[in-house]
Amino acid sequence: MSKLSNISTSIFTVMSKMATEHNAINLSQGFPNFPVDEKLTDIVAQLTKQDVHQYTPMAGYPPLMNKITTLVAHSYQRTIQSETEILVTTGATQGIFSSVQALVGNGDEVIILDPSYDSYEPNVLLSNGTPVRIALNDDYTPNWEIIEAACSEKTKMIIINNPHNPTGKILTESDFEALEKLLEKFPNIILLSDEVYEYITFEQKHISVHTKPLLRNRTVVISSFGKTFHITGWKIGYVVAPEHLMTEIKKVHQFLVFSVNSLSQAAISEYLDIVFVDNIGDFYQQKRDCFRQLLGKSRFKLLPCEGTYFQVVSYEAISNENDVDFCKRLITEHGVAAIPISTFYENEKDLKLIRFCFAKDNATLEEAARRLCEI
Amino acid sequence: MSKLSNISTSIFTVMSKMATEHNAINLSQGFPNFPVDEKLTDIVAQLTKQDVHQYTPMAGYPPLMNKITTLVAHSYQRTIQSETEILVTTGATQGIFSSVQALVGNGDEVIILDPSYDSYEPNVLLSNGTPVRIALNDDYTPNWEIIEAACSEKTKMIIINNPHNPTGKILTESDFEALEKLLEKFPNIILLSDEVYEYITFEQKHISVHTKPLLRNRTVVISSFGKTFHITGWKIGYVVAPEHLMTEIKKVHQFLVFSVNSLSQAAISEYLDIVFVDNIGDFYQQKRDCFRQLLGKSRFKLLPCEGTYFQVVSYEAISNENDVDFCKRLITEHGVAAIPISTFYENEKDLKLIRFCFAKDNATLEEAARRLCEI
Ligand SMILES: CSCCC(=O)C(=O)O
Ligand SMILES: CSCCC(=O)C(=O)O
Repeated sequence: MSKLSNISTSIFTVMSKMATEHNAINLSQGFPNFPVDEKLTDIVAQLTKQDVHQYTPMAGYPPLMNKITTLVAHSYQRTIQSETEILVTTGATQGIFSSVQALVGNGDEVIILDPSYDSYEPNVLLSNGTPVRIALNDDYTPNWEIIEAACSEKTKMIIINNPHNPTGKILTESDFEALEKLLEKFPNIILLSDEVYEYITFEQKHISVHTKPLLRNRTVVISSFGKTFHITGWKIGYVVAPEHLMTEIKKVHQFLVFSVNSLSQAAISEYLDIVFVDNIGDFYQQKRDCFRQLLGKSRFKLLPCEGTYFQVVSYEAISNENDVDFCKRLITEHGVAAIPISTFYENEKDLKLIRFCFAKDNATLEEAARRLCEI
Repeated sequence: MSKLSNISTSIFTVMSKMATEHNAINLSQGFPNFPVDEKLTDIVAQLTKQDVHQYTPMAGYPPLMNKITTLVAHSYQRTIQSETEILVTTGATQGIFSSVQALVGNGDEVIILDPSYDSYEPNVLLSNGTPVRIALNDDYTPNWEIIEAACSEKTKMIIINNPHNPTGKILTESDFEALEKLLEKFPNIILLSDEVYEYITFEQKHISVHTKPLLRNRTVVISSFGKTFHITGWKIGYVVAPEHLMTEIKKVHQFLVFSVNSLSQAAISEYLDIVFVDNIGDFYQQKRDCFRQLLGKSRFKLLPCEGTYFQVVSYEAISNENDVDFCKRLITEHGVAAIPISTFYENEKDLKLIRFCFAKDNATLEEAARRLCEI
């Protein structure tokens, strides 16, 4: 009967709810706990007295769309057309959903890497597509040979996520070379590049599909103001795609939400005039370094973290429980919430890994680390 | 190739855009042009300094969900469970989309009345369902016999819209008796009741499915704060459904948007403490009466309007053009934008009818009427 019979409540909901119930420090779901920039909240307070409370045009609030073209040009030296290549969405999640819904049909195969963010697979299933999961290498780099071997006439889309949630891995120039070669052989495959953590990278700079002329004319790029401006609750993301793909995505979007929150769009639009988007990596690098240093004294083993605001750790030295049980006990007995990594795997592979979100003020990170060091 | 090959840009987008380009008075797309209640914008300004900028829980901001249970109890004497029977959505449109996507599968038939709001049919098509259009009677009452004759084992859902966009028709007690009898014979059919204009009715009171014990346990009810509080741009609606249906709808919702705008949800939640929702029908009745009186001197023929903020008129005495062409000329030559009624019909039936939105300040209605009386 159920169209998503294997799907239960997402782990983010389960863990955040349990964290609240047990008054635990919530390092599970990815959202900041520090205040939003006052300049942005001042803009909201002032804007709410203006005429910004009715439907924006379907594809987005035009001044915001213009600012997005400027942002993409500034960040990636790519020129995009505001009217035809941009769509503002209810968060990146709805951008991904609408794109998959518009572009993937009955029986189409979609390559999803394993592990991956948990919405991709249900999105493909709801489009009647067939998810084809391809394991990442042990160091979380994509294995382009295996991916290529999985591609065929049936393959409609490849979904990449760069920087990668949950592992923080970022793609390199040689990844892009391999991807370009692969896609040259399959002219009909569409790339969906989820780049919501594009501005949160550390030692290495993020390489966006926006900078790749061979790829970008067949790619749907997904971005998120929620991540970039610490306003995950506002649910404002955007999609950039060439017109021939965007036309299809808009068809779905107009009957799915029609338009998105006008006040938030107007506020972000004004904020983009006064904010520097580039320096957010530095901000989060300090948090990452602080959190890693604090956990250095614990029995958790830290995996590398190149981007995103997530730190994956192994608890192998601590417990033999599966990761979901371990996360539950971490909440109830130690007062810290995390996300089990099995949730990102097709078959809920238990690798004794969990994910912490370090987008938190220093006091929170310190208290969480104190608790984690006692285990 | 395209999954929605027959679908082009929605008429609301086309007409609003053309209205802007020609600086016409925009009575096409349904949105108010008067200021939002200052009490609500004050709440936003004050709230933005608080901790309301991160993800709300997936189904909605809990205080708002509690207020919705109070509102439904107050308006309809129905007790609903906040945690299990409510979902807050990116406008009613996303509530409808998610419900159809969750509940309608491959080959399922969905009965859609003709004329109907333009998103229902594409929503069904994107779920791989089969839309079955049933004409309303000439006076826009549903013909329950014909509807019943169209029902079979294959029928998964019937969509009603009450008050009805575009005709303003509202369902009567005898409609509900017929509907109850019909559904008794088909225990598997789900009812989707789009009641976004529930608080905008005039001489007769709105009868909600919420008040119908025989129906409500198999019905998805759709509501819209955008319509009720003149904030269409905020895109906050909600769905009420019994738990067994809501469980499925939430599965789609969590991977479609995850959650909706936190600041708007928090603001509406506080506003619901201080606002009386009941009197909005009186407010719009004055606008309707004013607009009808002003148009009384024109060559347009006014159809009845029992609810919603839309007035349908016939231009038969004025022109023989089809309604889309007439609407375009109305913009370019007379400076008033309307919506052609053919857009709400399966086969774009041209009845020489157009729809005006009268949710406008009196000066706008007067100037629009002045222009329309000159034709
Ligand atoms: C939509 S809730 C999940 C937020 C997030 O991106 C994550 O925690 O991975
Ligand atoms: C989503 S735009 C259309 C608004 C509306 O409900 C209408 O004009 O009928």
